[in-house]
Amino acid sequence: MQFSVSLPEWAEKELETMHGQIYETLEDRMKPVIRFSRLNFEHDTGGPFAAGIYERDTGKLLVIGVNRVVPMNMSSAHAEVVTISLAQNMLKTFDLGGKGLPAYQMVVNWRPCAMCYGAVPWSGIRSLVIAGSGNELEELTGFDEGPIHPDWKTELEKRGIDVTENILNEEAIQVFRDFAASDRLVYNGRLGDED
Amino acid sequence: MQFSVSLPEWAEKELETMHGQIYETLEDRMKPVIRFSRLNFEHDTGGPFAAGIYERDTGKLLVIGVNRVVPMNMSSAHAEVVTISLAQNMLKTFDLGGKGLPAYQMVVNWRPCAMCYGAVPWSGIRSLVIAGSGNELEELTGFDEGPIHPDWKTELEKRGIDVTENILNEEAIQVFRDFAASDRLVYNGRLGDED
Repeated sequence: MQFSVSLPEWAEKELETMHGQIYETLEDRMKPVIRFSRLNFEHDTGGPFAAGIYERDTGKLLVIGVNRVVPMNMSSAHAEVVTISLAQNMLKTFDLGGKGLPAYQMVVNWRPCAMCYGAVPWSGIRSLVIAGSGNELEELTGFDEGPIHPDWKTELEKRGIDVTENILNEEAIQVFRDFAASDRLVYNGRLGDED
Repeated sequence: MQFSVSLPEWAEKELETMHGQIYETLEDRMKPVIRFSRLNFEHDTGGPFAAGIYERDTGKLLVIGVNRVVPMNMSSAHAEVVTISLAQNMLKTFDLGGKGLPAYQMVVNWRPCAMCYGAVPWSGIRSLVIAGSGNELEELTGFDEGPIHPDWKTELEKRGIDVTENILNEEAIQVFRDFAASDRLVYNGRLGDED
């Protein structure tokens, strides 16, 4: 009784040279995340979503993960859950905000869905950077983002997690446009209802 | 680059004789879930949380999973995420509501936290049964449940997932009382802040 989640080969290979590199600005940090979101659907290794975990104050990259729902048969294998879990596995801790650790920042190519939003406060990260938070994702791709808390940003800030929006917004949206044009599977739940 | 989550040995052993058995009433279905929530903290194999997935219309048990955050070093390894992922792995699908599948029901020993709540619509389950949804969990144990959507129940029902509350409420609360009295670790995120 177990389950496992792995990154696709292309991502492992890319990360070999990226891990430990410094990405100074928030744009520098978002750029490879958006690139991974595109590569992931182009390689048919998951949906158009990626998340990176960096040391907040230095920009040192720990890991970038991608959505793995369909290949892993796991509806919770969204980019943020995958990336947080990989980072915790690398550091051998369930809390990226534990004693003695640098502050970690998660950089995502859109606002997290309802589940991934809830995963943020448990992860121990202290900073969230997103490319956007508007309706574009749902409208362009057809993905349901779920019941997001109406005060999502304030609720994170209350818990000591700062939020920065609209980093490379247009670049992120272009990936959703291209995903939609590619006519790939939109893996919302309860697909059996669509008869 | 991967992570794996497994059930504790005692749970695997228990499930050998339980898998495929029929649990007729909602109380019958909740009872083993509450038992697992207690056994999990008593065995020091995770927090006091468990979730079971049953066929909604027959009560046939697919699997019961438990919280594995601390032993697996994974903040997302809450009982619901673990159980949904195990069920999807057993059935080789990311969607428990896919074509040709019976309707599945998840039975949990309290209202899901913000993350697990968001995981419900992605899982494909069509019914959620909980022992309670009040402040007792947070007040008795100290676990933060996160920013739950104010209309959490309506939002699930809008998505075709029915919700039943207050099944064996007092039995579930007694486990939280006993967990609190045992003085075990409450693994909220950002524990480094508590200096």
